[in-house]
Amino acid sequence: MNRYKILIEYEGTNYSGWQIQKNSPSIQQAIETAIKKFSGQKVTIWCAGRTDAGVHALAQVAHFDLNHDTYQPQTIINAINYYLKPQPIVILDCALVSNDFHARFAAVKRHYEYIILNRVSSPALEKNRVWHIRKDLDVASMQEAATHLIGIHDFSSFRASQCQALSPIRTIDSADIYTKGNYIYFNISAKSFLHHMVRNIVGTLVQIGLKKISPNDFLEILQTKDRKKAGPTAPAYGLYFKKIDY
Amino acid sequence: MNRYKILIEYEGTNYSGWQIQKNSPSIQQAIETAIKKFSGQKVTIWCAGRTDAGVHALAQVAHFDLNHDTYQPQTIINAINYYLKPQPIVILDCALVSNDFHARFAAVKRHYEYIILNRVSSPALEKNRVWHIRKDLDVASMQEAATHLIGIHDFSSFRASQCQALSPIRTIDSADIYTKGNYIYFNISAKSFLHHMVRNIVGTLVQIGLKKISPNDFLEILQTKDRKKAGPTAPAYGLYFKKIDY
Repeated sequence: MNRYKILIEYEGTNYSGWQIQKNSPSIQQAIETAIKKFSGQKVTIWCAGRTDAGVHALAQVAHFDLNHDTYQPQTIINAINYYLKPQPIVILDCALVSNDFHARFAAVKRHYEYIILNRVSSPALEKNRVWHIRKDLDVASMQEAATHLIGIHDFSSFRASQCQALSPIRTIDSADIYTKGNYIYFNISAKSFLHHMVRNIVGTLVQIGLKKISPNDFLEILQTKDRKKAGPTAPAYGLYFKKIDY
Repeated sequence: MNRYKILIEYEGTNYSGWQIQKNSPSIQQAIETAIKKFSGQKVTIWCAGRTDAGVHALAQVAHFDLNHDTYQPQTIINAINYYLKPQPIVILDCALVSNDFHARFAAVKRHYEYIILNRVSSPALEKNRVWHIRKDLDVASMQEAATHLIGIHDFSSFRASQCQALSPIRTIDSADIYTKGNYIYFNISAKSFLHHMVRNIVGTLVQIGLKKISPNDFLEILQTKDRKKAGPTAPAYGLYFKKIDY
């Protein structure tokens, strides 16, 4: 048995998310089907983080096992990509790893990016790939609020009700915002996140950008540990799973 | 009569280009139809540069005239955008201009960007929006060659046979290449360009990147003034009309 680690880019728009669902297309199903087609083997692939419907990935990581003489990594890449076509999912890299490697449990840091287009007109070029917000956002206040996220906190205020994590405590390593033209980029890194945590944080930061609440209110929301105090969940289509460190 | 200047973003993939064509959708037709729907007037719009099929625009400029009491620019933006939906064309800005303004003839500088994705795997997120090149490109050599473009030259070597310009002489103000991850960005600015000139230059720069010809060969190709000596035309879908100065 050989274990392979793969790096995956995908456009999540037309998928129900990473995880296999009955009656709707998933990223996992698409890749498992492609692996089955080239290898003849029915495998289960394990990813670093299951993305929601509509969420994109620049470099998702997953692993799977094949019973076979060792394949060259480039053969795996070419074969899976061949059978994935014309879907917007591609394997960027592949490596033979030890049998105790696990894409989810071995990850030491996850990096997400959320992109907002802040202008009056809707996007022509970035449809389904950014959250379009017409009203002017105060980015400096959003950045000020984001600094409150750094460190170890109970993130219950930003946790989806269906979250299955054992603890709401997470450690945020960095949370930065920068702008380029009308685009606002929010980058956040941590060992792991709660369900919908990044989108709930972004939804609340946007309330600050709209001056409905202050950066100080953001700190209070974090401290109340009450999901009802925070803002709405930002849409999935602005979110990118950007990088995983091992 | 009032003259309006509009700024337009569009994804050119599913259009035959800017110019109205019989039996195929064009950007010009889409916008003229939207203006007709909200104003009741049949207008002709004039743009700064007619883009080819598949070419995108971040900020195309055009003008048109309406017989009417003056509209507020934001009314024009909202009305055209309303009738353009769901097409990937949006008006970003609008201004009332003097009756002697001309989007094409008043332009003093045009800026184009060409994007190449240089990696083995095809794009999942940037399909139809970048030129995907699998083989490693030597970007330093491409940049070296690009410096030969600066200044006043006879660009016959990079001119499409169907070009209708009176002279092949153009003045390039800047031509720069930078990379970000696997993406290569080529930016070029001039008062005006010949037909297919940017795409022919990029197609030839890629020959240098692939080490089929040298940066010095590029200078010779420019000096021969012979289109047959230069490389193939780069595909339209990597090209962006980025900005026009007035």
